[in-house]
Amino acid sequence: MQIDIEFFWDPGSTNTYFAWKLLPAIAARHDARIVPRAFNLGYVFRHHNYAVMAEPPPKIENRKRDLARWAEKYALPFRFPGVFPIKTSVALRGAIAMRRWDRERDFINAVLEAYWERDDHSIAEIGGLKPLAASLGVDPEAFAEAAESDEMRQALIDETQDALDRGVFGAPSMLLGNELFWGKDRMDFVEDELERNSI
Amino acid sequence: MQIDIEFFWDPGSTNTYFAWKLLPAIAARHDARIVPRAFNLGYVFRHHNYAVMAEPPPKIENRKRDLARWAEKYALPFRFPGVFPIKTSVALRGAIAMRRWDRERDFINAVLEAYWERDDHSIAEIGGLKPLAASLGVDPEAFAEAAESDEMRQALIDETQDALDRGVFGAPSMLLGNELFWGKDRMDFVEDELERNSI
Repeated sequence: MQIDIEFFWDPGSTNTYFAWKLLPAIAARHDARIVPRAFNLGYVFRHHNYAVMAEPPPKIENRKRDLARWAEKYALPFRFPGVFPIKTSVALRGAIAMRRWDRERDFINAVLEAYWERDDHSIAEIGGLKPLAASLGVDPEAFAEAAESDEMRQALIDETQDALDRGVFGAPSMLLGNELFWGKDRMDFVEDELERNSI
Repeated sequence: MQIDIEFFWDPGSTNTYFAWKLLPAIAARHDARIVPRAFNLGYVFRHHNYAVMAEPPPKIENRKRDLARWAEKYALPFRFPGVFPIKTSVALRGAIAMRRWDRERDFINAVLEAYWERDDHSIAEIGGLKPLAASLGVDPEAFAEAAESDEMRQALIDETQDALDRGVFGAPSMLLGNELFWGKDRMDFVEDELERNSI
């Protein structure tokens, strides 16, 4: 039986980029399927009344060093974007819209690579997403119309709210059945869970 | 050349327990030496004006699940203590005092096992630490006198401040030369660094 890994993502999350890049090899080893779920962190932060806490400079410095270590260890051309944070709701709506063309995962990959590898923050606007759609063989105008539709706006709210209702609280999160894993540094636990399920 | 792993610890930190239990095998594989550094989190939080932020219940729930997964994966008899948080400065002073008898690492191990495996929160008081000292062959009265001395009170402040001055911001942290690693989930990066240094 093929196992689904629900992957809750937001393109504004650095760790979403890393987890997304590490997950396919793990899924392939266990013949699992990655099922993306849009998780609008802006909506979530408002929902939880999150405040971003000021952090001591050494902690911020260490986070940068840590990200560089991850990029090196896994040979990923990551670089921290010059413009951060950005608005992510258009890209999330675009991903949901891409289900119509069955290109959601390719689109997510294109969005994450644009922002986290090429420092391209145009993914915050529909104008920056249209060329990505075109590169996947999807008509950019039809894509833009779908991504900007009221239907997709509601779909993003519903999908994020559904995740919250199911206990997801951050991105990246991976849900296998009822087992929730949070963060790029829990990939080995995801793999353990897949192994347990394949017995 | 033997490499030193400076290990910044506080017994009130759950992740200190896990990192402490995982580190010896890693150090042994690379003939590295673990050098404990007392890091008084209470002092640090005051220093940084940290506020503990209210977290959404699903996040708290997931943390518990995550800790249970770590305990299972590494076969550790961890259980979350009934009394938490506790005062940790006496145990930290006791550890520094134990250098006089060359039993610091054994003492740290005894303290962490008492609190994180046996739910024994008496380690918050000198009375709970004396039996641990005795079990290590150290005269409990001489130990208590040292641990409660003004000299040790100052030593704990100095050691914690020195760590802050060197860029340590949390526990557990591991410092190898100038490379700082934070958290129980960076043990593989510590091992990578040891490998790099042994070439």
